[in-house]
Amino acid sequence: MTNRSLLAALAVAAAAVSMPAAAQFQKPEDAVKYRQSAMFVMANHFGRIGAMVQGRAPYDAATATANAEVVATMSRLPFVGFVEGTASTEKGKASAAIWTKRADFDAGAKKMQDEVAKLLAAAKTNNLDNIKAAFGEVGKSCKGCHDDYRNQ
Amino acid sequence: MTNRSLLAALAVAAAAVSMPAAAQFQKPEDAVKYRQSAMFVMANHFGRIGAMVQGRAPYDAATATANAEVVATMSRLPFVGFVEGTASTEKGKASAAIWTKRADFDAGAKKMQDEVAKLLAAAKTNNLDNIKAAFGEVGKSCKGCHDDYRNQ
Repeated sequence: MTNRSLLAALAVAAAAVSMPAAAQFQKPEDAVKYRQSAMFVMANHFGRIGAMVQGRAPYDAATATANAEVVATMSRLPFVGFVEGTASTEKGKASAAIWTKRADFDAGAKKMQDEVAKLLAAAKTNNLDNIKAAFGEVGKSCKGCHDDYRNQ
Repeated sequence: MTNRSLLAALAVAAAAVSMPAAAQFQKPEDAVKYRQSAMFVMANHFGRIGAMVQGRAPYDAATATANAEVVATMSRLPFVGFVEGTASTEKGKASAAIWTKRADFDAGAKKMQDEVAKLLAAAKTNNLDNIKAAFGEVGKSCKGCHDDYRNQ
């Protein structure tokens, strides 16, 4: 690739993806949208495992593991998006308490990530009972933070 | 975990994540939000690599690879969200052409996934020049579909 065609391709790529500048997020709204997007994708794939756990979908070991892999990847993403100045007073959105009790919030995030790692390990045992138990623990870790840090 | 506490945990988890029913998406809007969320997260992490490629952020091999891993995971997700009946006429949104030329759209998605796999391989060489070249090809594959299947 010549320098000129590389530059052209980079310009194209930049236009295509609305690339952020040197900072991770160009504006606070991008950080909010990023964390919400990551949470939504995570919840969807967690829900696909839930459908098997709750008997609404047939248990398929490979599908469960693939979904748990996505959940594990997603579980690490949202928290960089909780940047200062992005609290909300709207129901269901991020409470200001996140920033006044950040260490506790971060510990809750870590707890969720740890439980998700156990869910992935459980999925890899190809045993639905193991998955059920781990799934419940992940759910509790979600609820813990949502109760405390999402506006009711 | 007793059956009763398992059931309680499952109820909690279901409430926490607005779990879809047996179908992957409960309603068409969920499919749209899912694909948009996955694309947004993918673009963000692709952009973080772009910042290094374009010299706006220092090159760090481990960070580049971690971001390429996320892009690779995300690249496989959005397309299940392009369900029938979710075309838009709004600028920048999914064009009806996706569903009239679905095979071509799917080929474009596959092309992007292949280029992203090469970007991940390039990142693992720990050589910024390799990453630059692969990054440009991914950008072109993004633009290809966006030009054809996103309302202008």
